[in-house]
Amino acid sequence: MAVSKIKALTFDVFGTVVDWRRTIIDEVTQLAQKKEFTVDAARFADDWRAGYQPAMHRVRTGDLPWLNIDALHRVILDDLLDLHEIRGLSESEKVHLNYVWHRLKPWADVRSGLERLRQSFTIATLSNGNVALLTNMAKNADLRWDCILSAELSNHYKPDPEVYLKAAQLLGISPEETMMVAAHNSDLKGAKNVGFQTAFIYRPQEYGPTQTTDLEPGEHADFAAKDFIDLATQLETHTT
Amino acid sequence: MAVSKIKALTFDVFGTVVDWRRTIIDEVTQLAQKKEFTVDAARFADDWRAGYQPAMHRVRTGDLPWLNIDALHRVILDDLLDLHEIRGLSESEKVHLNYVWHRLKPWADVRSGLERLRQSFTIATLSNGNVALLTNMAKNADLRWDCILSAELSNHYKPDPEVYLKAAQLLGISPEETMMVAAHNSDLKGAKNVGFQTAFIYRPQEYGPTQTTDLEPGEHADFAAKDFIDLATQLETHTT
Repeated sequence: MAVSKIKALTFDVFGTVVDWRRTIIDEVTQLAQKKEFTVDAARFADDWRAGYQPAMHRVRTGDLPWLNIDALHRVILDDLLDLHEIRGLSESEKVHLNYVWHRLKPWADVRSGLERLRQSFTIATLSNGNVALLTNMAKNADLRWDCILSAELSNHYKPDPEVYLKAAQLLGISPEETMMVAAHNSDLKGAKNVGFQTAFIYRPQEYGPTQTTDLEPGEHADFAAKDFIDLATQLETHTT
Repeated sequence: MAVSKIKALTFDVFGTVVDWRRTIIDEVTQLAQKKEFTVDAARFADDWRAGYQPAMHRVRTGDLPWLNIDALHRVILDDLLDLHEIRGLSESEKVHLNYVWHRLKPWADVRSGLERLRQSFTIATLSNGNVALLTNMAKNADLRWDCILSAELSNHYKPDPEVYLKAAQLLGISPEETMMVAAHNSDLKGAKNVGFQTAFIYRPQEYGPTQTTDLEPGEHADFAAKDFIDLATQLETHTT
């Protein structure tokens, strides 16, 4: 494992950096109290996230034109408000709710872990989330990235190879000098296939208490770390 | 002047944020001592910078394919080493010298000025420099941008309108909600033409003690500030 070659770490964001489920549950619960409707906020969060892969697939196959994640989240949200029979939200309330993805809160280890990793490596997002979403999220959550990179910059969605290759190219380094950090094996597989090094992060509560997927690293993970602080410790050990 | 509408400031970098001339003079002088050659370091710096507009023009007209600034700087550097009769640099020394643009040092007001502006606005680079260059520069100089944006993301060079429009699009805002900050009137004119607000920064020493251009703001500047701290003060006054 040539860890000493690594120049940059690229991070998946939804689930790996931020706890989308908890943040959405909290905001939807508050909104329901304010607007006096009833909702299963956990199911609402899970349904919103579940709409994400099919929506990206429609872009990938050309059924939809290129739409960024803000736009896809809104398409899903409009269906979801019908499904959950939530009426009476104004357009500006819907816009605000859709931007909950810009306000997602990081897992407890993230801020200090990133600060340590930033001492030794360039750290960048590499999310299917669009640049504006990631920029606003970093500002809201006080996360200091060296660079905001997004699938949006290649007009492809992960795990398409174009996303990873574009990121390495923009960072001015080779895929072998780049490490993808993610809580999802499909993402690590996509990165590994174009030559990235890979680190799996355990986020066994991302999908709630009954999560069944991505509980363990798959064969494409070079490292496995319980959180960002553990990853910093492992990489510092390997490079010194 | 609807300053209250501004959501993001986009910054020109070479000359506006960093003092390219002083940094290059210092590094070339040190290299000349180490490698025992004689050079007019100020002329070398000025010649390198002077090669920049013609090189971008060759890309713009299709005479050269899309090349990022790292590549253009290297094309110019190779000519320049011949012109200044500097021999005996190894390939790795040339690569290192070319990356002096990644190590440029900011003007004295920049770090504290940006920190103040970042409290009220999203702050992003918007440079003809490539993403890797800007990312490395920010890391070297401890500049905290919310987002690294570059002409590279549109495959056009400023002042082409595509560069500014792509930046606003990626930030998820309208041109009218974006303010271009630059020490160069041509840049502000390009931004203004697509609807940006604009701020001119006085950098009367950018081209050395005998500078004759961009000494005063032109007609396309909505604001003029003597440095980033002054700009922060002016924008805070207008928005409160």
